Amino acid sequence: MDPNTSGLVQKLAEAGQSHLLQFWKELSTKEQQELFQDLQGMDFLEINGFFKSSMETSSSTKHEKMDGRMEPVPREVLGSVTRDRESLKDWEAKGLDCIGQSKVAVLLLAGGQGTRLGFSHPKGMYDVGLPSHKTLFQIQAERILKLQQLAKQKTTVNCCVPWYIMTSGRTMESTKNFFSEHKYFGLDKDNVIFFQQGMLPAMDYNGKIILESQGKLSMAPDGNGGLYRALGNQGILDDMQRRGVKFIHVYCVDNILVKVADPTFIGFCVQKGADCGAKVVEKTNPTEAVGVVCKVDGRYQVVEYSEITLATAEKRSSDGRLMFNAGNVANHFFSFSFLRDVVQKYEPQLQHHVAQKKIPFVDVQGHIITPEKPNGIKMEKFVFDIFQFAKTFVVYEVLREDEFSPLKNADAQDGKDTPTTARHALMSLHHRWVLNAGGHFIDENGRRMPAIPSLKDGTDLPIKCEISPLVSYAGEGLEKLVKGRELQATLMIDEHGVHELVKNGV
Amino acid sequence: MDPNTSGLVQKLAEAGQSHLLQFWKELSTKEQQELFQDLQGMDFLEINGFFKSSMETSSSTKHEKMDGRMEPVPREVLGSVTRDRESLKDWEAKGLDCIGQSKVAVLLLAGGQGTRLGFSHPKGMYDVGLPSHKTLFQIQAERILKLQQLAKQKTTVNCCVPWYIMTSGRTMESTKNFFSEHKYFGLDKDNVIFFQQGMLPAMDYNGKIILESQGKLSMAPDGNGGLYRALGNQGILDDMQRRGVKFIHVYCVDNILVKVADPTFIGFCVQKGADCGAKVVEKTNPTEAVGVVCKVDGRYQVVEYSEITLATAEKRSSDGRLMFNAGNVANHFFSFSFLRDVVQKYEPQLQHHVAQKKIPFVDVQGHIITPEKPNGIKMEKFVFDIFQFAKTFVVYEVLREDEFSPLKNADAQDGKDTPTTARHALMSLHHRWVLNAGGHFIDENGRRMPAIPSLKDGTDLPIKCEISPLVSYAGEGLEKLVKGRELQATLMIDEHGVHELVKNGV
Repeated sequence: MDPNTSGLVQKLAEAGQSHLLQFWKELSTKEQQELFQDLQGMDFLEINGFFKSSMETSSSTKHEKMDGRMEPVPREVLGSVTRDRESLKDWEAKGLDCIGQSKVAVLLLAGGQGTRLGFSHPKGMYDVGLPSHKTLFQIQAERILKLQQLAKQKTTVNCCVPWYIMTSGRTMESTKNFFSEHKYFGLDKDNVIFFQQGMLPAMDYNGKIILESQGKLSMAPDGNGGLYRALGNQGILDDMQRRGVKFIHVYCVDNILVKVADPTFIGFCVQKGADCGAKVVEKTNPTEAVGVVCKVDGRYQVVEYSEITLATAEKRSSDGRLMFNAGNVANHFFSFSFLRDVVQKYEPQLQHHVAQKKIPFVDVQGHIITPEKPNGIKMEKFVFDIFQFAKTFVVYEVLREDEFSPLKNADAQDGKDTPTTARHALMSLHHRWVLNAGGHFIDENGRRMPAIPSLKDGTDLPIKCEISPLVSYAGEGLEKLVKGRELQATLMIDEHGVHELVKNGV
Repeated sequence: MDPNTSGLVQKLAEAGQSHLLQFWKELSTKEQQELFQDLQGMDFLEINGFFKSSMETSSSTKHEKMDGRMEPVPREVLGSVTRDRESLKDWEAKGLDCIGQSKVAVLLLAGGQGTRLGFSHPKGMYDVGLPSHKTLFQIQAERILKLQQLAKQKTTVNCCVPWYIMTSGRTMESTKNFFSEHKYFGLDKDNVIFFQQGMLPAMDYNGKIILESQGKLSMAPDGNGGLYRALGNQGILDDMQRRGVKFIHVYCVDNILVKVADPTFIGFCVQKGADCGAKVVEKTNPTEAVGVVCKVDGRYQVVEYSEITLATAEKRSSDGRLMFNAGNVANHFFSFSFLRDVVQKYEPQLQHHVAQKKIPFVDVQGHIITPEKPNGIKMEKFVFDIFQFAKTFVVYEVLREDEFSPLKNADAQDGKDTPTTARHALMSLHHRWVLNAGGHFIDENGRRMPAIPSLKDGTDLPIKCEISPLVSYAGEGLEKLVKGRELQATLMIDEHGVHELVKNGV
């Protein structure tokens, strides 16, 4: 563990990162060990290369206006739950067949921590305050369980939807423990596979790696696009191949409404012969902060909201809709062969994106400084960076109120994407399921309530209603439980039956 | 002032309202005077008739499902800012001509108090916290001023847009004082005409008028549809006729984005030969709490969100849009002759709507009770009740983000339609005006900011930017002020120039 004899000093010198050892003599033996280990495991020349190319890409594209090069998604590659209603049943059947043949895997992006949420554990462990107090992980696990059942009902054979869960160095251990403690929420342990995305150091504008304390580098996950590198170097591709997985649904942990392995989406993509597909929701307000799927120079990509000009964001088609309205929701389909090509051939070609950040650092006196302006960068790849390599790319448009409500921030006035908005979105969806299955809600006086709840004091209070994924994946199968019944909130329907939890007496 | 000799006792007895005098002997002389005056002014037989017919209508329509009778607005009566872009200039020119000929009046519905807002004055006096701290009344007054200027530029003659302001008994005096104190915000005092909508007593389910204290009836304004009765009995129709008003724009005080006397909307309605028109915004989520303009049994009306079933609310056209998507925003066009016919012929045919409410009352012991359940009704007519009488009805669809942001509730977590949402909506619109006029915003480091501001901690913080209506009515005329300039928030543009109010130094 001597930096000199081990060659580390020389390695750092060659990479221009010698400053990382500046406090070496002041560290305890334990700190020295940890720093030594961290540094030994890093490929500084590769990291320097990432820095150089990502900074070049970032500065060269900055002034290159996207506007003239953007084209909207053509109708022929678009499937839509509102515009292609006559095809939905077919697509769903096709998807269920694929699932029934155990050809479909689910891949969860769960490397992030709930920092903005004010939650120091993996986000999937968050309880948004539903009547059942289920966590995001549990909700998603139960949807997979239910889907396996539905596929079995159709095909009459057992099937399995393996669940690959990408964590990061920071979330791996607690995620694994959480699943283990909860007995994998009823899933087969062997079909829940954890793997870990890579980390990269934060760097200052001169390419020097930032120390967050005297003996510790400032490290961050390498973006959700770190997925592809991890799929290769952690043996996940091999595992998929061994299992005979042909189609993969990739999604992000924070969406409480996510239809995990949505058979309709998968069926649509498979029927279109797509190697890559993106689920989107319609962007209806030009200044909504959402990236849009479109073509740039003839290739598909996501243009982020920070990259688009107002003139382009406000462009409309002749039908009055926004021309660039395919709002990206981090919900994708890949064929296995495409994913394999991406990992083996394309991913290394991708540059990292540069995110300028305020990164706490230790100054030459050894004081930890929290800067007030951005002082360096984090380097990230994005999961959608590989759309450009698709040979047959498709887009599938779904309804936001049915499928997308991400959890990003803590509750706050005018907060968006909070535990409250997530909870309300789920309960509102389940309320609609009950109504569409022929159930009725009554108030404390026994009067039927309108389908659209009124806003009390401007606060949108949905009727409290939660249906376990073990009972219904997407609203199906509820008639026998609720049709013609008059029900009172809080209503909970689970595998044990229909429960009216609280009688709202006066 | 003797109830017996004046015939009041007999009048009340005949109307079954004798209980209103039950505390007579316990009242002070002053209280007796006030009660006597209130009761003498009321037509109890008429009120009993209102009660009877409104209760009958309410109970008979309750079970009569609307679903099978609803039809959407046909395309041929619809004008749209997004789908009819090629016509907008023509419509605007037509509207400006009408305004220039002093044929257009504006009618403001301002009878409500800011109760839900936690504001004890007329809502128009509210300051939502813009950089200028202008009230809603001032913003609207300045839009009228600017419009008169724009029309004059076009026609080269002076014109006048009279502003009729409907208050209620509760808001009349403070509204008039407020305008007087502020010198009518630059408008000619003679062109700002106040009038007062009627009041009706609250009644219990048996048709007995409710006493809110021993000597005072529980009274409430008769709904914004009280407009029509007031137009007749307060001489407003006559005033309009005397001035030669041909077209009237009616709107509600609480919408901070309202385009008062919007020339494009007026021009559209006039060119279509409409006697009645409704401005709408697209409803995009089935369970949004907004009424929709549609046809029922072949006649136009607004179906309120509480009246619609989920199945109907979720119906979609082949283009994927909601079939019933013409969201009513209380923003209407009437021809003078239609309004005259309504007042003289149609209005008396309309039944009141019944709103069940928790109405504080005095019990037989004289104690004031605040009930926990609805215990009675308020009777209201709605401004849109008269759509059914239109011979040529049109609908004009505009963008919510450009034209509709109502102020209804106090700021609160997850609050809708609050001072904050209103302020943000206005600043976001003005930010877009600046960008579209060729201006750029830069941050504290001099870097250009993206057109779509990012969400910090999930809170949507727009760039602070406010443009006085005296400078621009709808975004026009800003190029000479901002084109090619780099600007820092807080930006304020008013009749004195362009001001960067705060340098956001670090």
